[in-house]
Formats: sequence, structure tokens, C-alpha cells
Amino acid sequence: MPATHDTAAVLAIGDELTLGEAVDTNSAWIARRLARRGVRAAVHQTLPDDRRAIAGALRQLAGRCGLIVSTGGLGPTDDDLTRPALAEALAEPLVEDAGALARLEARFREIGRDLLGANRVQAMRPASARSIPNEQGTAPGLAATIVQAGRACDVICLPGPPREMRPMFEAHVEPALRPSGNRVIAGRDLHELGLPESVIPERLGGLMRRGRNPVVGTAAKTSFVTCKIRFEGPAAQAPAALDDAERRVREALAPYIFGAGDDTLASVVVGLLRERGETVATAESCTGGMIAQWLTEVAGASEVFVGGAVAYSNEMKSACLGVPAAVIAAHGAVSEPVARAMADGALARCAEAGRPATHALAVTGIAGPGGSAPGKPVGTVWVCRATAGEPADARLFHFPGDRDTVRERAACAALGMLRLRLIGRADARLLWERA
Amino acid sequence: MPATHDTAAVLAIGDELTLGEAVDTNSAWIARRLARRGVRAAVHQTLPDDRRAIAGALRQLAGRCGLIVSTGGLGPTDDDLTRPALAEALAEPLVEDAGALARLEARFREIGRDLLGANRVQAMRPASARSIPNEQGTAPGLAATIVQAGRACDVICLPGPPREMRPMFEAHVEPALRPSGNRVIAGRDLHELGLPESVIPERLGGLMRRGRNPVVGTAAKTSFVTCKIRFEGPAAQAPAALDDAERRVREALAPYIFGAGDDTLASVVVGLLRERGETVATAESCTGGMIAQWLTEVAGASEVFVGGAVAYSNEMKSACLGVPAAVIAAHGAVSEPVARAMADGALARCAEAGRPATHALAVTGIAGPGGSAPGKPVGTVWVCRATAGEPADARLFHFPGDRDTVRERAACAALGMLRLRLIGRADARLLWERA
Repeated sequence: MPATHDTAAVLAIGDELTLGEAVDTNSAWIARRLARRGVRAAVHQTLPDDRRAIAGALRQLAGRCGLIVSTGGLGPTDDDLTRPALAEALAEPLVEDAGALARLEARFREIGRDLLGANRVQAMRPASARSIPNEQGTAPGLAATIVQAGRACDVICLPGPPREMRPMFEAHVEPALRPSGNRVIAGRDLHELGLPESVIPERLGGLMRRGRNPVVGTAAKTSFVTCKIRFEGPAAQAPAALDDAERRVREALAPYIFGAGDDTLASVVVGLLRERGETVATAESCTGGMIAQWLTEVAGASEVFVGGAVAYSNEMKSACLGVPAAVIAAHGAVSEPVARAMADGALARCAEAGRPATHALAVTGIAGPGGSAPGKPVGTVWVCRATAGEPADARLFHFPGDRDTVRERAACAALGMLRLRLIGRADARLLWERA
Repeated sequence: MPATHDTAAVLAIGDELTLGEAVDTNSAWIARRLARRGVRAAVHQTLPDDRRAIAGALRQLAGRCGLIVSTGGLGPTDDDLTRPALAEALAEPLVEDAGALARLEARFREIGRDLLGANRVQAMRPASARSIPNEQGTAPGLAATIVQAGRACDVICLPGPPREMRPMFEAHVEPALRPSGNRVIAGRDLHELGLPESVIPERLGGLMRRGRNPVVGTAAKTSFVTCKIRFEGPAAQAPAALDDAERRVREALAPYIFGAGDDTLASVVVGLLRERGETVATAESCTGGMIAQWLTEVAGASEVFVGGAVAYSNEMKSACLGVPAAVIAAHGAVSEPVARAMADGALARCAEAGRPATHALAVTGIAGPGGSAPGKPVGTVWVCRATAGEPADARLFHFPGDRDTVRERAACAALGMLRLRLIGRADARLLWERA
């Protein structure tokens, strides 16, 4: 009588979670993975390190769901209670698993430590349960089936650390999923920089209409908007349905969709530069190195990123980038002439150094909370993109938000301007740009 | 018959949460706030946009808890179902709240939009419920009491966006909490950089013993370890007990505790520099601007941060920082002489610019995944702190981990070296430092 994994419950176990000392990210990760395979999580529960509470929840949920996946509470200490709670829910004793014990002993030998009694408890399992090997840590997982009133529910208990839990889920849970149909909930995320969230519904029209399948929703981040395409239906139809919706979203929001899924603005810009054999240098004031850091976060950035200056003080703007002190004195550090001089200076310095850059991005602005001046409120930022052999493009932005927000939006605007130039759409305007 | 808030349940409502498309951070925030006031969250549940599921959970939890706090599902659309679900759990009709409607109308007038029928539904409440004003958005909260078998449970429903929810919780929920005793769960976080997590238990001795109160636990982050002090007991005893435990932890781990609570390594370094009227400049290679960005994240950083160079290429190391090309050729870019020359060059450039820096931090290393060389595996990083008028301090680190991890650990080591110098402990060694 195998369980059917029509609906699932996801449990997270630990006092640190119920007390709010840590945020549970495992449950969302597991639920997303289940949905992709057609198993819908009907509920998530977070429970304390309390054997009776865990056992009670397992029994109660086993009456409603075909699958329970839990994380946490499998460590070697007295307050790791998932093992005895599962035994209680199954009304079974705990027994030592020979295979799990052998793997545990081997693991301890490997790291040159003795297997103590406290760790030995990790080889215990309820009599009818199976042990799930953990390649990344000492806590094996558990798999068992609770049967109540003729209804079966599979229970999978995994350790809490994501780097242990995720590979165990992928190797041992995902392949064993048995959704009742072949329906899946599949999604795709497309990221848009440059349009306000409020104009997206009119551009996407019916794609966002409730009840449509696939349906598109939006989630606004600090600097950009993610369009989330969600398809629910037969697995075989998912790829074509998602492809079609993605094409429509890209067309409707062109040229502003910059990437999908795990893409970042910096990873996309690095990729575009690499394709073209081009390079970039940065000259940052209020963003304080953020653009350089984002670009160098991308593996292989050294091919396309020449270098950057964080010219936070006026003196450094002059010394490092050759911005004439008279220009700063006449226009102020946050001004179009200074932004242009910074970008031109960055190009010139790279050329002098014998490592010319194709493009330079310069940012000078007022991130706040201090530093505002008459006519230049917090959020006033000049961004300049200079490209060797072209007129430079300098734009004024007024970014709403606090210091962190203004800095992030300014860094995104600079990379956004470069991206638009790289795809041949340097004409396109960006959100928060002033006329 | 007022409810006693001895134990609480925290609910998060929304399909995007049960499907794992978003991570719920509200529940942890609420649970932590409740614990500080002596109310223990016994369970968290995440529920889909499903009226019957929400109503069922409310009724079930009302039999076990004195307080339920929910977030989400109060928007104006068809799948915002917290309002009708609460009405169902109370077995009451929804009625229009005159005050909530007036506030909603005023809010829409303010932003120059018409109040549509869809939004008008946000002024509805179950007949016996109260409406909780929302200063940051359109969705009012709800407060009601479910009575079952002579037992009362207060239910508070708040909107999902944290920037709306948090001020509502602070203004309307926190003051109304009625814990059964005056017991609280209070905590303090102390951050330690430089010691491996594994030596902390022997240094803290009994402070980490299970059952001690306050008890100390550790949580390892990428680059540092947080020592979490947790006190559970009478509210009046909490401050002295936490002060005592904090003093012991600081003494036992001196000089490595760099901050508490929301402190960051950069905010602490900026504070120490400001106290001393000193300044810093940066010369970064593999960290790519991360140190500069962290420093400039701190409001008022311009007083202490002179500027930085992201000298990602050899040419820029020579051009911007005056590192002789011959030194790079002889020793390689990742070497002690280059790290020293970068730090010295940063000090010299600032002095030439007329804005001398007291200290300079230079980092050159191999973040990976490419770039390793014989004897210089990925994770090999040289960090140099130069201070005007002192011999420079250059150290070799071997950081384990992937590209992001190596970069973050290198940036932390550099700031950690500067911090130790600023507190007069430049002699102290740091984790991952080679002899």
C-alpha cells in the first residue's frame, strides 16, 4: 500500500526557529522542489525541540497528506528529538542501523576523531524506518511510512544544514516522489530593470489575468522587478507553455528584461562584454565600490573588468581620475561635468596604464542621510557611461529610498545603462531618470 | 474573559509561501518579538490562500494557544482570504468598518486615485473584530477573539509586507501582550572574528552547558561566529543576567569579539577610526571593491574613508598604486612584496593627493575558481595593513571555500587586522592565517 504523494506537509524542527532566532529557508526550498515534480505542499509547520509536539504533528499530518518532509532535529545532542518523535509516531522502538553505524565510524576515522556515544545515537532509527546516507555530515536521514486508518503517509526526515539537506533531497527524495497525476507546478523568473512595476500589468495585458495558465505575477525588489511565470498542469505541456509565456513577456517588456533565474545584472553585463571582447572600468563615488564588487563577483570577471577607483573624496576624484579641482569647485561633486570627467578620466587612466577599457561607468551622488544641498536632495545621482570613440551618455536620477537603497539603485542604473548600450538600445530610458 | 498569551501560534498565509516561491521572514521576526515579551511561539504554520484551510487552522490553534498572529492575505484581490477565513472561524458575517473605510478613502485621496470596489473590501471586518490602522499601506489589520469551550484566543491578522506589518505589530500588538507570568526569553548576540568555532566551547566552559541560564550557543557565519546568549526567566532578572554573561563571553574570547547585535565589522571599524580621528584607504584586487563598499555602507563613512583602488589587473596595480612591474614579474601578483607595495602605494597616493590616510589595507589573492598556480592554490590571499610611520603588517591566509566565500573571508580578515591594530592588539593572530 504505497503512499501517493498528492499533497505534502513540510516541517522545520528546532527551538531556534520557533523562537525566531533563525529564519527557516529549507521549507521554501523543499516546497519549490516538490512543486516542480507535481507535489503540492499544503502546509508548512515549524515545531520546537519537543518530542511530543513533533510526534503529534506527524500523526495529525499523516491523516491529511501523503508525504511529510522534515528538516532538523537529527543531531547528536539531547535536544535533537526527531528520531524518537518519529519512533513515537510509528509506535516502534529505536534500533541501531548497522549500515548507518558503519558509515558513521568510517566518517569519524576519516577526520581522525573517536566515535563517541553521543554521535552513535545518530545511527539509531525506528524499527521499520530506512536510514538515508548523508555525504556531507554525520546525521543520516530517515524514511518511514505511517499508516493510519488504512491510509499511508511517507515521512522523510532530513538534517537541518542546507548543504547536507539539499544533496540528500536530490539523491534520495526527488527520485522517489510519486505524485498522484502527472501535473506539475513549474515556474520561470524573468528580471526587468527600468520600468516601474505599475506599468507592467498594462504591458502584459491578459498574461497577468487571474485564472490564466500560465499566469504571470510580479515581485518588486529594491532595484528591479521579477516577473514570475507559473504553470500548473500536465508535465508534458509545461516546457512549451512556459516558453510561450516567456517569449510574450520578453516582447512586451523589451528592452528591459535583463535576465532569468539566477542571472544578476552584473553576470549579464559580464557575459555581454565577454561575447563582444570588450572591457569596462569603474569610477565610483556614492556607490563606494559596489559596481566593481558586483562585477568581480562573477567568475572570470578579470577578462572584462580592468579596474576601478572608489573616489569618495574630492581630492581622490582629482588625484585618481584627473577631475579638475576647478570643475568640482564650480559645479559641486554631484554634477554632470564631474560625472563626465570621472568617466573620461577612468578611460584615460586605463589607456595610460596600457590596459585600455572599452567602456567606463562613473557614479557621483548623494546617498544620504547627510550631504543634501539646495536643489540636490538625498537620492540625486549622476551616472555617466563613456565609451571610447563615442559621445558619453550622462543621466540624472532621483532615486527614492534610504542610503542602502539609493546606493543599490544607482549601481543598478549604471550597469543598466551599460547593458542597454551593449544590446544597441542606448536610447531607452530608465526608471527614476529625470528629463 | 480575556485570553492569556501564554503560548502563541504564528501563521504566514499565501500560496507563494507554501509553494516555496518566497521565504517567510515575518514569522521569525514576530516570534522573536513575542519571546522578548515573554510569549513563547509553540508553532508556526504556513498556509495557502485557501479560506477553509485558514479557518480550520485558526479554530484548531485557538484550542491550544492564547494568541494567534498571522501575516498575509489581507490585500484587495480574490485570493486574499484571511478576512473571510477569520469570519468563518468566528461564525460571523463580514461588516464594513466605518473608521477603516474613512482611512482608506483618505489614503486614496492623498495619492490621487479613486477608491475602487476591490479596495473597498479591505474595510470589511468580521462583526466582532476590530480594525488595526495601517500607516504604510492600504490593508488594515484585524483583531478578534475566538472563544471555544470557554477558552479564549486572541487572533491578530496583519498584512504581509514587512514594512507595513512591523510598525503595526509594534504599535498595536506589542503593547497589548498579556503573558501569563512575567517570564521572558531575552537574548544578546556577540560577534567573534578570528577564532575557529571549535575552540569556543573550551574557552566558554560552563557558559555553553545545556540547562545553564543564561546559556550561550554559537552560530557560524561565512566569516565569523555569533555567540548567542539566551536568558529565560523573570523579566526583572534579564538585564543583569545578560550583562554578566556578556562580560564573561567578552573576557573569554578577547580580543576577538568585535561587536554585538546589528554591528558589522565595517561599522565597528568606522566607529573606531572616527573616535581616533583617523582615516583609511583601500587597495583591493581579489576582493574587487568589497572592503570599500562595506565601509561606505556606513552612514558618515566619508569622514574616515579617503578612497580606494580596485586594481584587478597587473597594469592597474602599477598605474594606480605604483607597484613596480618588476616586482609583479619577480614574485607574481599574489605575493607578499606586491601586497606591501599596494598598501604603501595607497598611502603614498593619498598623501600626494593632499588627503593623507592613517591606514591602508591591501588585498591580493586567488578567489577562484581559476587562477591557482603551483604553491598558490585557490584561497591563497596576502593581506597587508600599512600605517603611516609604522612597519607594515603583511599576512598570508589560506581561506577555504568557493569564490564568494574566499572574497568575503579576505575582506573580513583585512578589516579584522585593522580593528585589532586600532584596539592595540595588532599582535593577535586570525583564523586561516599561515605561520
